[in-house]
Amino acid sequence: MQSFGIGLAGLGNVGAGVFKHLTQNRSLLRGRLGCELEVRKVAVRDVSRDRGVPRELLTTNAMELLDDPNVHIVVELMGQKEESLRLMLGAIERKKIVVTGNKALLAEHGKEIFDAAYEHKVPVFFEAAVAGGIPIIKAIREGFVANHIQSIHGIINGTSNYILTRMTEAGMGFAEALAEAQAAGYAEADPSLDVNGGDAAHKAVILASLAYGFWVPMEKVFVEGVEQLTANDICFAEKLHYRIKLLAHIKAHTDGIEVRVHPTLIPKSHVLASVNGVFNAIAVKGDVVGDTLFYGRGAGQDPTSSAVIADIAEAADALVSPRRNLGFMPHGLYGVCKPIDEIVSEFYVRLSVEDRPGTIAQIAGILGELNVGISSILQPESEDEGATVPLVLMIHKASNAQIGAALDRIGKLVCVKRPPRMIRVEHFD
Amino acid sequence: MQSFGIGLAGLGNVGAGVFKHLTQNRSLLRGRLGCELEVRKVAVRDVSRDRGVPRELLTTNAMELLDDPNVHIVVELMGQKEESLRLMLGAIERKKIVVTGNKALLAEHGKEIFDAAYEHKVPVFFEAAVAGGIPIIKAIREGFVANHIQSIHGIINGTSNYILTRMTEAGMGFAEALAEAQAAGYAEADPSLDVNGGDAAHKAVILASLAYGFWVPMEKVFVEGVEQLTANDICFAEKLHYRIKLLAHIKAHTDGIEVRVHPTLIPKSHVLASVNGVFNAIAVKGDVVGDTLFYGRGAGQDPTSSAVIADIAEAADALVSPRRNLGFMPHGLYGVCKPIDEIVSEFYVRLSVEDRPGTIAQIAGILGELNVGISSILQPESEDEGATVPLVLMIHKASNAQIGAALDRIGKLVCVKRPPRMIRVEHFD
Repeated sequence: MQSFGIGLAGLGNVGAGVFKHLTQNRSLLRGRLGCELEVRKVAVRDVSRDRGVPRELLTTNAMELLDDPNVHIVVELMGQKEESLRLMLGAIERKKIVVTGNKALLAEHGKEIFDAAYEHKVPVFFEAAVAGGIPIIKAIREGFVANHIQSIHGIINGTSNYILTRMTEAGMGFAEALAEAQAAGYAEADPSLDVNGGDAAHKAVILASLAYGFWVPMEKVFVEGVEQLTANDICFAEKLHYRIKLLAHIKAHTDGIEVRVHPTLIPKSHVLASVNGVFNAIAVKGDVVGDTLFYGRGAGQDPTSSAVIADIAEAADALVSPRRNLGFMPHGLYGVCKPIDEIVSEFYVRLSVEDRPGTIAQIAGILGELNVGISSILQPESEDEGATVPLVLMIHKASNAQIGAALDRIGKLVCVKRPPRMIRVEHFD
Repeated sequence: MQSFGIGLAGLGNVGAGVFKHLTQNRSLLRGRLGCELEVRKVAVRDVSRDRGVPRELLTTNAMELLDDPNVHIVVELMGQKEESLRLMLGAIERKKIVVTGNKALLAEHGKEIFDAAYEHKVPVFFEAAVAGGIPIIKAIREGFVANHIQSIHGIINGTSNYILTRMTEAGMGFAEALAEAQAAGYAEADPSLDVNGGDAAHKAVILASLAYGFWVPMEKVFVEGVEQLTANDICFAEKLHYRIKLLAHIKAHTDGIEVRVHPTLIPKSHVLASVNGVFNAIAVKGDVVGDTLFYGRGAGQDPTSSAVIADIAEAADALVSPRRNLGFMPHGLYGVCKPIDEIVSEFYVRLSVEDRPGTIAQIAGILGELNVGISSILQPESEDEGATVPLVLMIHKASNAQIGAALDRIGKLVCVKRPPRMIRVEHFD
């Protein structure tokens, strides 16, 4: 039976999981694949820590994987930037297939990596980079190959979804929910990338690039995190029959694509509204297949290992049978990413206003002048005239430039006491 | 650019859709695949009907596809038995890759087809056979290759799901809901296979065979349809916080697997309970990936075409790069399919009993003797003693043999006026 050598770079949470499951499910993999997958070298920071990996496989020099002729597949799970990039490009040059879950690196250096991949005809697989164990990369790349992808809407950061779930279910504030997530091990000590939308943006770049055949530049992606969300907003959304989720929105238009990550009000009845805790879900709409949805654990040792091992299996096959598609197929059918100002959506706007006659007229006047329509108004009853009260407006479809201009002017009104708060709304139509 | 020839056998609903979308999305496919997919021959029953396919491609003899050296991929969409099987085996012998959506044929002749495929080293792809456009075959075969599949629970027949949805939402009886489904084009003139569970059983056989590496014999699959369901059962289930769905259940145990298709009470809060209308959804649990779910349109021209074209693309790749896995990989890790009598579940039992003192005691006595536990009882208040009233029992975990023996005895009691009605319950734990 043919045997393929794996070099594992990184033995953190996911790396250790990959080693464990490759070992535990070895006979299953042998039966299903008709070949052996054998870990032959493992690069770690500190060889003295015991992680259940035989000592003789360990090295502290990841570049050793490149020079070992018995390593055919390099699995990059270090999660670094320069070192990981150097390792991946080095592997490609030496015709070793690369498997990685490094979303930040792909989002920022995808073009460079795949230019090298095509130059040397070496595949790079990255199922683990988006949505953990959900085979969404394979679905978009292969399952939906016949489709113009019309839209992708995804909950693709488990940490922020956990935080929003707790804010919604338990009425917690952001800080309290974050602290709980950290205590439960769902958020890291430095949770910045999870809560500021950066991690979801990396994944959105990968999904959009795959769907549209060109590497979307990170700086073209509009990103807003969940840090500014208040229990108030979640409560008002609830009253209006919406839930707030941190969503990645990817859509194709005739004049370009849009890629954005931000908190979004979605109808409570939509299936994404019921995706709670650390789960991920991705709704993909294609012109042939119609509406689809994928759901599962978006992170964690085991689900991510499942995706990495699937890629290793694919790599073992590709070593024998070279593929035309090397993991990402560049093509020239799309190519433009629209700036946020041009993107149209509906909006939720929360104002803090003085409760006096004429307040709503002034605000509505500005919106009317700028051709921005109000679809509904929610003003909780207030006790005494003259107090500062919340006023929630639901706004019909408008461009982000339009709503921005309107809120600029509204924010300067004397009767408006604090900077307006705006959250985008999506109805998935 | 390399070009691959497709022979299309059958130009019904799906065949016409495949031709249409291959044509409409031709430049997209060229960009993504780096090759051309060209339909070179189409076998139809009647060449005079215009279907938008150039007349010179048409033939009435499907076997002509086999002898055409320019046809590299044979797409079998005739939905026949003997003729389809002959075509597929003929294609395999001639080293033409086969793509099919013929679930009945695969369920009944899967072993024979794949024995031939391995003998001649020719892949057979069948994504369209299960759940329309949802790439569930690829997910199980490739995406979850690292996993022992612990269970698969699926709504995989859109027609019966539409009927149950209407019965639940509009309080219709079975006959009325079926008539509506037929009027809406969701059920065929002869709906037998959809409502008697046969179609779902074919798909369950395919999913189970794929997950466990051996072709599950159809006769080992327990099948019960939705024809016997009443508005009453749906209403009582609702009161108990359940929904009734026609589900395929596939589970692995240490001593074998179970495969069954029947109406099932599932908790209203479970995501499968919210899958309505003609949509399909499949929950897959793996020992590494954990819980996942796939959702989309399970039938219809477009979604099914999406799956067929994905397979054609894969076939085009496999023509150049021979695969180790030919679409289904047989292995010897499992192999036994448990009989229904040994399968354990919870149960809903509806009895028609005389409303007299001692009735419940008699019934509970029999259950107790047979070691079958009652978890709850629902008896709607009745007007006059002595009337025949419904009595609903929720039964703790027991084997099908146990509950069968108990209901046999209970059905013979004088106070029980009609044959007991039993529906299985699933809590997905």
